[in-house]
Amino acid sequence: MAGPPHTSETVTLAEYLFTRLRQLGVNSIHGVPGDYNLELLDYVERTGLLWVGNANELNAGYAADGYARIKGLGALVTTYGVGELSAVNAIACAYTERAAVVHIVGTPPRDSQDGRKMVHHTLGDGNYRHFAEMYQHVTVAQANLLDPRTAAKQIDATLEQCILQSRPVYIEVPVDMVKSEVQVSAEGLETQVQISPSLTSVNGREALAEVTERIYAAKRPILFVDGETRPLGLKKEVQQIVESTKWPTFTSASGICLVDMTLPNVYGLYQGNWADQKTKAFFEDADLVLSFGPHHSTTNSYALSAVPNASITIDFTYGGIRICGKLYRDVSPKEVLRELVASLDPSKVNAQYANPDLPRTQNLPFEEVSDGEIIKQDRVWKLLGNFVRPGDIVLGETGTAGYGVREMVFPKHTRLFTPCTWLSIGYMLPASQGAALAQRELVASNEYDNIKEARTILIIGDGSLQMTVQELATIVRHNLNVIVFVINNDGYTIERCIHGVNERYNDIGRWRYLNAPAFFGAPEGSYTGSAKTFGELKAVLQDKDLTDGSGLRMLEIFMDAEDAPVGPLLDLLKKQKK
Amino acid sequence: MAGPPHTSETVTLAEYLFTRLRQLGVNSIHGVPGDYNLELLDYVERTGLLWVGNANELNAGYAADGYARIKGLGALVTTYGVGELSAVNAIACAYTERAAVVHIVGTPPRDSQDGRKMVHHTLGDGNYRHFAEMYQHVTVAQANLLDPRTAAKQIDATLEQCILQSRPVYIEVPVDMVKSEVQVSAEGLETQVQISPSLTSVNGREALAEVTERIYAAKRPILFVDGETRPLGLKKEVQQIVESTKWPTFTSASGICLVDMTLPNVYGLYQGNWADQKTKAFFEDADLVLSFGPHHSTTNSYALSAVPNASITIDFTYGGIRICGKLYRDVSPKEVLRELVASLDPSKVNAQYANPDLPRTQNLPFEEVSDGEIIKQDRVWKLLGNFVRPGDIVLGETGTAGYGVREMVFPKHTRLFTPCTWLSIGYMLPASQGAALAQRELVASNEYDNIKEARTILIIGDGSLQMTVQELATIVRHNLNVIVFVINNDGYTIERCIHGVNERYNDIGRWRYLNAPAFFGAPEGSYTGSAKTFGELKAVLQDKDLTDGSGLRMLEIFMDAEDAPVGPLLDLLKKQKK
Repeated sequence: MAGPPHTSETVTLAEYLFTRLRQLGVNSIHGVPGDYNLELLDYVERTGLLWVGNANELNAGYAADGYARIKGLGALVTTYGVGELSAVNAIACAYTERAAVVHIVGTPPRDSQDGRKMVHHTLGDGNYRHFAEMYQHVTVAQANLLDPRTAAKQIDATLEQCILQSRPVYIEVPVDMVKSEVQVSAEGLETQVQISPSLTSVNGREALAEVTERIYAAKRPILFVDGETRPLGLKKEVQQIVESTKWPTFTSASGICLVDMTLPNVYGLYQGNWADQKTKAFFEDADLVLSFGPHHSTTNSYALSAVPNASITIDFTYGGIRICGKLYRDVSPKEVLRELVASLDPSKVNAQYANPDLPRTQNLPFEEVSDGEIIKQDRVWKLLGNFVRPGDIVLGETGTAGYGVREMVFPKHTRLFTPCTWLSIGYMLPASQGAALAQRELVASNEYDNIKEARTILIIGDGSLQMTVQELATIVRHNLNVIVFVINNDGYTIERCIHGVNERYNDIGRWRYLNAPAFFGAPEGSYTGSAKTFGELKAVLQDKDLTDGSGLRMLEIFMDAEDAPVGPLLDLLKKQKK
Repeated sequence: MAGPPHTSETVTLAEYLFTRLRQLGVNSIHGVPGDYNLELLDYVERTGLLWVGNANELNAGYAADGYARIKGLGALVTTYGVGELSAVNAIACAYTERAAVVHIVGTPPRDSQDGRKMVHHTLGDGNYRHFAEMYQHVTVAQANLLDPRTAAKQIDATLEQCILQSRPVYIEVPVDMVKSEVQVSAEGLETQVQISPSLTSVNGREALAEVTERIYAAKRPILFVDGETRPLGLKKEVQQIVESTKWPTFTSASGICLVDMTLPNVYGLYQGNWADQKTKAFFEDADLVLSFGPHHSTTNSYALSAVPNASITIDFTYGGIRICGKLYRDVSPKEVLRELVASLDPSKVNAQYANPDLPRTQNLPFEEVSDGEIIKQDRVWKLLGNFVRPGDIVLGETGTAGYGVREMVFPKHTRLFTPCTWLSIGYMLPASQGAALAQRELVASNEYDNIKEARTILIIGDGSLQMTVQELATIVRHNLNVIVFVINNDGYTIERCIHGVNERYNDIGRWRYLNAPAFFGAPEGSYTGSAKTFGELKAVLQDKDLTDGSGLRMLEIFMDAEDAPVGPLLDLLKKQKK
């Protein structure tokens, strides 16, 4: 029953499915057991995978998404109806922001389905297709494994879509199919899922020629790194372009950390209407923008004010390469960028604009805050920036944290999760579980930028924490290296900024947050700390038990309910308070 | 801005909607704020309603369902996409088991929708209809309030469907519609939503005549109280029939407590293949079954073995009255039962079978267990039965608790929640919040069977508790009279019964459950207790601080991971352990 390689021409469906996932880099399966998936779960450990066992399905979905954003692919198993529906919000998140998540659902036996039986976990109307139909809205491919002859092919085709589009897929496994011997090709499981190679089309050659020409002709070129650089797999190529052209480089919110933010020509986040005037003028004066992985949602682009002007922009996108409005379809952005990196003649590239004198963000040295001062959002983020080390994963939850983390200056090899489009509060806590697990696996297999030890740092408001708090227990159970900064500011401050600053519906229950590790089963004496002043914050941020401890550590940071990071949120808050 | 009555011919949409709900008996709105519903929430308190403010949307949905099952109607407000999708599992539950829940979603402004803008909380594809389409699967009516001219009529028509079918409905309120002056009829809000009266059709008279005739002719008649007696609103009429005919009466699982279980002719739950032989023979020997509110899912009917024989059964259902296989449509079961009660001639009713000598369940007197004995599932339920008082609401979560509570013998005026069809673990905890709130409101308004003080008792396994644990904080915040018995048996025992008795996927994290009240903000010294032996259990069950305290109290009861109540679960477990 051990994993690949496998040579016979038939193989158990469950073994086939999990082996395929393992071959694609998935070493852990998230999810929750339920009576239509138990037989399937028998095969998780048998195929060499770790079963995570989340506290609920929404959290399992979020965790699989966090895992996928770090490792490229993640998976969860839920049960029919009651399980899968709880996860659908997480799958919508993965769809919107492009995380490659395989959602496997254990379904009732074919007998019950064919007989339209009124079994539990159905709506009782004999129709077993409701939930699959709901899932079609938020997945790019679906497979219902009803036939042993085709199940293996269905699995491969579905996984390919998941990877190519970096979006979730949906696979139904009737419980009586789990042990079916499915037919596989002569190679069986010896070869991996074949992912269709990029097209080397006429379009591609034309696009490359035109991109090259425009690069050589540009007088005021800039680079713009956006969030879909990650799912498109362009990080390496983008880094090379940034280094070789030395052109001024900016990122969107979701583009932060997708390029080395410490390079001299990287100016960090471009905030459009919220950028300083000099930077804005410079950005808008460009005559060419190479834009990698554009994702123009309002939140990611500062209400569209940070979107580069389409008439001078070359977009490297999922749809192909769009050159100043003209889309070259069926072209791989990755292939074109690779060839571009290989063929670019540095002597022909305009370097005039390298290192323009634009304002840069810096972290705030610990010395520059006074001890007795209460913690305020205008400076806390740049102070927290000092805490981050190369290799850390930082997650700033939707809310003030999500905007705050954008002010931090990150070392090389950091990964950042910041609100992009879906913005479901509660996402980041389970995502930190998934991300930390993926990080641990990558470190263990020496695939993590040569970093040998790394931490996952979750920064989250109290209202968001309450949504999905039980996943702290999963972090505890798997002894993941996660540090949680809880911002205790008495409710939904991001919503106070938008509307109802003093309305009671923006209040939440007052929990004793630092009781969490003990409640969720952490070892006695697990690290907790709190800070109400900058002095207290400085002290705990330098406490070795926090910085270099292991397992779950928690820090409660008190801030005012009516305080927000400088930028769009603070502007909204000021309007509310007028 | 105060509530009804209202005389003008226009009224603010939000005020109209919430006033309609209040007129129908909804005094509290469950839900979670989000930026597309904040303006709407401004009107909750203004129209005299309580805003509950749940920790997350799934829990809000479950809580609204629990509230609706006690008060007849419940409501929740969520935000577009991220909020509503988290609640969809709860709405599916309400659909399946017939709880009248109004799900109100605050949606983006019509401008964003018409412009297909890529705003946050969308999938980013410009299509704003995805989530409404998903909701069509689990709601019986939908309204998208885009037009001030028709919004009031849409609201009324949608609420009517919710009430008539006792199933969820879905109402979208674009944020820019909240303050629209909507047109109302001349009576405005002075008259309530008009619920269509029952048809007094030829069918109804024919059905009544045939039912009466069959009742008089029956030689071995019995009564069967099933779960849809509750949503159909037949409790009073059923009670009258049970009392006047004195016929032997049985219930399904979900029918428990829908009739006074202490009456001499009420023999309690009928378990089909798991019933004792004498009872089974008696039940199957009937020549007429009056079956009220049938709901023949496998879980509710002991794998269909407790379903009365259709050829001798009169079913009072949502579809009409089915007499021995022949369905009379467009007939109100309630009207026919009312007339039946009024017209039945007791002298013509066969009373021969009153009080047959069948085994009856009894609670277990405290004296009958030995102090040092560890707690076992074969007797603990009948011991817990002593704890329940008239007026209590008891919730037995899916799992061993859900089967266990069926063994308890309940006093008059008890309400029971037991797993029926949807069986989503995690449901009962938030449902207990909603039920306890509804109970408090009914007691306060003297509509609760003359009971002046009542408690809500949740009995739940550890795995289920972990799913939705944060709603304990909402119980704390609203100081609801809820007692939680947590069964600590180290994982998903119901699933161990089904498959994988020793598999690790049925394990869960080991929490320190009794830390919960302190963590979730309960007052210092809130009651907690624990029991590993029957002696300890007896002691705490009689502790005044537990029985007569206020707010959240918790008791941790330890049981073996491989132990289950006598019946289907234990049989499955025995097979697994072979």
